Amino acid sequence: MRFATRHNGTPDGELLVMSQDGRRGLPAGPRWPTLLAALTQWPLFLEEARALANSLAEGQGEAIDAASLLAPLPRSWQWLDGSAFPNHGDLMQTAFNLPPIETDKPLMYQGLSHQFLSAVADVPFPTEDDYIDFEGEFAIVTDDVPMGCPADQAMGHIKLVLLLNDWSLRAVAPAEMKTGFGWIQAKPACSIAPFALTPDELGDGWRDGRVCLPLRVEVNGAWFGHPNGAAMAYGFHELIAHAARTRSLCAGTIIGSGTVSNSDYASVGSTCIAERRAIEMIADGKPSTGFLRFGDRVRMLANDDEALFGVIDQTVCAASV
Amino acid sequence: MRFATRHNGTPDGELLVMSQDGRRGLPAGPRWPTLLAALTQWPLFLEEARALANSLAEGQGEAIDAASLLAPLPRSWQWLDGSAFPNHGDLMQTAFNLPPIETDKPLMYQGLSHQFLSAVADVPFPTEDDYIDFEGEFAIVTDDVPMGCPADQAMGHIKLVLLLNDWSLRAVAPAEMKTGFGWIQAKPACSIAPFALTPDELGDGWRDGRVCLPLRVEVNGAWFGHPNGAAMAYGFHELIAHAARTRSLCAGTIIGSGTVSNSDYASVGSTCIAERRAIEMIADGKPSTGFLRFGDRVRMLANDDEALFGVIDQTVCAASV
Repeated sequence: MRFATRHNGTPDGELLVMSQDGRRGLPAGPRWPTLLAALTQWPLFLEEARALANSLAEGQGEAIDAASLLAPLPRSWQWLDGSAFPNHGDLMQTAFNLPPIETDKPLMYQGLSHQFLSAVADVPFPTEDDYIDFEGEFAIVTDDVPMGCPADQAMGHIKLVLLLNDWSLRAVAPAEMKTGFGWIQAKPACSIAPFALTPDELGDGWRDGRVCLPLRVEVNGAWFGHPNGAAMAYGFHELIAHAARTRSLCAGTIIGSGTVSNSDYASVGSTCIAERRAIEMIADGKPSTGFLRFGDRVRMLANDDEALFGVIDQTVCAASV
Repeated sequence: MRFATRHNGTPDGELLVMSQDGRRGLPAGPRWPTLLAALTQWPLFLEEARALANSLAEGQGEAIDAASLLAPLPRSWQWLDGSAFPNHGDLMQTAFNLPPIETDKPLMYQGLSHQFLSAVADVPFPTEDDYIDFEGEFAIVTDDVPMGCPADQAMGHIKLVLLLNDWSLRAVAPAEMKTGFGWIQAKPACSIAPFALTPDELGDGWRDGRVCLPLRVEVNGAWFGHPNGAAMAYGFHELIAHAARTRSLCAGTIIGSGTVSNSDYASVGSTCIAERRAIEMIADGKPSTGFLRFGDRVRMLANDDEALFGVIDQTVCAASV
C-alpha cells in the first residue's frame, strides 16, 4: 500500500491511502487522522486501510493534486541518518586526504525531525555562502522498537519506505564534524517525496533490508546521477539494531541510508554535489561543479518511475530573515 | 509559574499548574491538555494559567503525589544539547591528552527527544560495561523560533527552565565522537526534574540567559558536586541563536547547557563521573572513581531547594532485554 499526507491546516496533515498510480486517494478517516498516529497501531490500521486500497484499485477515490501533499510525515519524533554507502566515504577521504573513519559500526547521526518539507516546497537557506547541497537517500519508518532489538527482528519493524533529500550545507559541515558533536547548522530540514510505501510495494526492489533501485537526481533539468540503493554496507534492519542498542525507538522513527553512492560512479554519477566535486578533485586536481545557487532546481525520483515514491521537485531560495 | 505533567495513560500526560511549594496542583484543563500543546500558544496559555496559579497561592488545589509525575515534557520534537562549560572540556582534554576542539561557535549535538524519563523512574541500561554516567544540566524550553533569530531576540523565546540528567555511556562515547557524527548509542534517554519553571521563578538566579544556581548531585546518598550554572561560556539565548541559524525551532525545543562544571572543582566537585575521573587522572595519574553499577542511585536538585525544580532521584537498573 501507499500513503500520502494532505495539507489540512494542522501540523501533521491528513492521512490518505493512495492509488497505485499516485493520482487518486481516499482519506484514512477520523480514526486514523495522521500517519504518525497510524504507525502506533500499524497492524490494525493496515487492516482497515486495505479496504480503502481495494476501493482505489477498483477506480474509486478522489483526484489528488500533488501540490496539496505534504511530506508523508511532516514531522516526527526521531530522524536518524546513516551513512551506509562506503563508496561515498572513500571518495570524500581520498579527495580531502582525510584519515579513514575508524569504526566497526554503522555511521549515524540524529537530525532535525520537527519539520520535513514537502516535495514541492521552496527550500529556504540563509545564504549561498554556506555551499548548499542535496543528498539523495532512501529511508525507512519504524513502529515501536524495543531497546536491544537484534537485526533479524528489526526487519519486521520496517513499516514504510521513503525517498528523501537530506539538504546539507558544505561550508559548515566539516567544522561541525571536527568537533565530534555531529551537525546542527550543516543539516537543516530534509524534504520527503510524497508517497510512503509499504516495502512489498517495491517487489524485487526490496531485498536484504535495502531499496535495490536507482535514485535519479536532476539539477536544473540535467542528469546528475542515478546510483542504486543496493550498495549499502548495512541494511536498514542493521541500522535499526545499531540505533536501538541503548534506546527504544518510537513509532514514526525515520532512518536514512545516507547519500546513495556506487563504485561505478563514472557511469552512474552521484546523488550529491560534494561527491561529484570529490571525484573531480581526484581526477583533475580541482572541483569544477559549483554548489547550488538561489533559483536552482533539484528533482529526485526512484527507478525512473514518477508514480513510485512520487517526485521531489524543489527550488532553492533565500530565507526571508 | 511552575508546571508539571501527570501520568494519565497518554504519551504526553496531563498538564498541571503547581503551587510554589510543589505539593499542590490544578489541571490546566481540557483546552491545555499537555505542556507541548500549551507551548504553541504560550501567551494565551499563561494568561489563563495565572488564574489557576492565584487559586493555588490561596491554598486551593489538590495534593500531588511526586510519584505520579512524568517529565514536564515526556517527549518533544527536538532536544539540542550544548556543552557550554569550558572547564569541563579543558579537564577532559588535559586528562586524555586530546587536542582542543577548534571552534568559535557553541558546541551542540541533537539527541533523543521522543522519551524523557520521569524524575523517579528506574533507568534501564543494557550493560554496566558501557560505563554508565550522568550529566547534571540546566536546560530551557522555547516557543517557535524563526530561522535566523539573533541572540538578543532569542532571549524572549526562552519560556521555561528545566533541571535535567543527560545519561551518558562513557565506553561508547569517545568512539562515536571520533566518527564526527555525534552520539547515538552513547546518549540514551535523559531524565527531567518534575517542575518546569518560567524564568522569573528563579529571581536573581536567572541572569544573562544562565541559571546562576548550584546544581547538587549525590550518588548513593553521598555528595558528588554542586557547581554553579553561571559559568556557561554562552548563555541559552546564544545557544538558541546558534541552533536557529539554518533552521527554525519548533515550540517545545529543549536546549541543554551541557554538564555543569566550574574551575574551582576542587571545592565544588563535578556533575558527572567522567569529569571527576579526569580530575583524578590529572592529580594522581589514574582515576579512582568507578562508573555506576546497577542499583546505584543518583539524586539531583538545584540550590539545595527541593521545591524549586523538584528532585531527580533514580536508580540505575538492567534493561529487560
